[in-house]
Amino acid sequence: MARDAFASWMAGIQHTVEAALDTALPDPSHAPQKLHHAMRYVTLGGGKRVRPLLVFAAGELVSANPEHLARIAAAVEMVHVYSLVHDDMPCMDDDVLRRGKPTCHVEYDEATALLVGDALQTLAFDLLSRPMVGLAPARQLALVSLLASAAGHAGMAGGQAIDLASVGTALSLPELEFMHLLKTGALIRASVLMGAGAGEPLLNTETEKLDHFAKRIGLAFQVVDDVLDVAADTATLGKTAGKDAANDKPTYVSLMGLAEARRFARELRDDAFAALDGFGARADRLKELADYIVARSF
Amino acid sequence: MARDAFASWMAGIQHTVEAALDTALPDPSHAPQKLHHAMRYVTLGGGKRVRPLLVFAAGELVSANPEHLARIAAAVEMVHVYSLVHDDMPCMDDDVLRRGKPTCHVEYDEATALLVGDALQTLAFDLLSRPMVGLAPARQLALVSLLASAAGHAGMAGGQAIDLASVGTALSLPELEFMHLLKTGALIRASVLMGAGAGEPLLNTETEKLDHFAKRIGLAFQVVDDVLDVAADTATLGKTAGKDAANDKPTYVSLMGLAEARRFARELRDDAFAALDGFGARADRLKELADYIVARSF
Repeated sequence: MARDAFASWMAGIQHTVEAALDTALPDPSHAPQKLHHAMRYVTLGGGKRVRPLLVFAAGELVSANPEHLARIAAAVEMVHVYSLVHDDMPCMDDDVLRRGKPTCHVEYDEATALLVGDALQTLAFDLLSRPMVGLAPARQLALVSLLASAAGHAGMAGGQAIDLASVGTALSLPELEFMHLLKTGALIRASVLMGAGAGEPLLNTETEKLDHFAKRIGLAFQVVDDVLDVAADTATLGKTAGKDAANDKPTYVSLMGLAEARRFARELRDDAFAALDGFGARADRLKELADYIVARSF
Repeated sequence: MARDAFASWMAGIQHTVEAALDTALPDPSHAPQKLHHAMRYVTLGGGKRVRPLLVFAAGELVSANPEHLARIAAAVEMVHVYSLVHDDMPCMDDDVLRRGKPTCHVEYDEATALLVGDALQTLAFDLLSRPMVGLAPARQLALVSLLASAAGHAGMAGGQAIDLASVGTALSLPELEFMHLLKTGALIRASVLMGAGAGEPLLNTETEKLDHFAKRIGLAFQVVDDVLDVAADTATLGKTAGKDAANDKPTYVSLMGLAEARRFARELRDDAFAALDGFGARADRLKELADYIVARSF
């Protein structure tokens, strides 16, 4: 019953975010048409929208305006999608399948994929910096700052650079964790903090608890991703399975084994749950979402 | 005498902006080192810093805080540099020389060049969204918005997409102008409006005049660039000369001829000057800068 309510909440958010992305993306009938078509091709109609779901779950905890949350969620998702488009390019991971469709450089061409990623990143900041009625500009500026610090050299882009440098090398568990903290963790953390930053102000101690939750869930998400890469097939994933081993990439599974990685994901989820003690029922969506993320690996 | 004062003003700003970039760029001793080294390699010690000069010249017109202007100028320059790094990549213009040095993908590798551009764009928004003491958050947010709309699909990135699509085709003058309005014009316009947006508020009519100035100068800048591509040599330019003709790219020179393109640049400069009537001596720097930009083509 709670499961059904969660599933329907999730479907509702996914629908809302799809609409927000559709509205924010450029009109494909306007020049440059190919760029605009390609931006829509990579962004619309795919993905689980985990980061937008985190934005909404955290935002509902602080009674944030759903229209603001939709805008924030769309901006975070655009940054995520831009990173996928660039990571899939031949000079990076060289992948041909993403969200069940040919990757951008395969469907279009490399130059277009490069520009699509560039323009999606810009559009994220464009969206986030347009006036949000009812939110103090200083708080809105803090959202821009959260997204920028999460996406850059000390976050997502830096993590991808470490990932590239680590192919074929033997990373220790702390090194692997540092890479993921940046590569996927930073944007997941920003999703939670941005959602939480759009509503009733929290106490610093409350923000710290959410931050701890977000870091644990970000790491759990990556552990689950590593598990799925060996345990699921390409059709289920919508992207090439078994890629990490084929590319000789260090993963939680290669360092810990499959069973231990699954156990570690559960442990992270439990630790994330514990950080939410004290928020009461307001944090239920975040807990359900954490469960959903970890349950994918079983 | 006025020339000397201008040259020394220009050198001062260039020095200030170099220092602001140096401070803002990540420490090369921190991981990921290669990414951080490469970000500094492409950003520091090169370029005329035309956009930062425009930020300061417009900012001085409204008595803006020089520390704010340095931050804004660094952010605009980072967006410009990121676009050069990506445009030089093999899947785009495939160039090997920039600002007198090997391009980023030649000095490092393609994956690094891709990430350097991505991370520089993010860092621009990071810089611009950190608190600026003494500037109202709503006005700072407007600066973020100006940069984002200038850099994205309806500005710089869109212009590059049109440029790529136009290779080997016959553009009309209006089509060429539309491309440049986006590709270089939008960021030059944003430089002027961001500088002007950081100080004493202007009347709407005054902002419109500055906007007209910025649009004319942006176009003049591109016409001059086309002239220099045929009239200067590689050593002077610090990038490959004669590239437009070699790539069969439509330019003002190919459409108008060299003499007419030079005349057009002067006409744009005069039109830009006229827009500044009414600002008095406060606009002298902007005029000197417009002269400097156009004089490069003679």
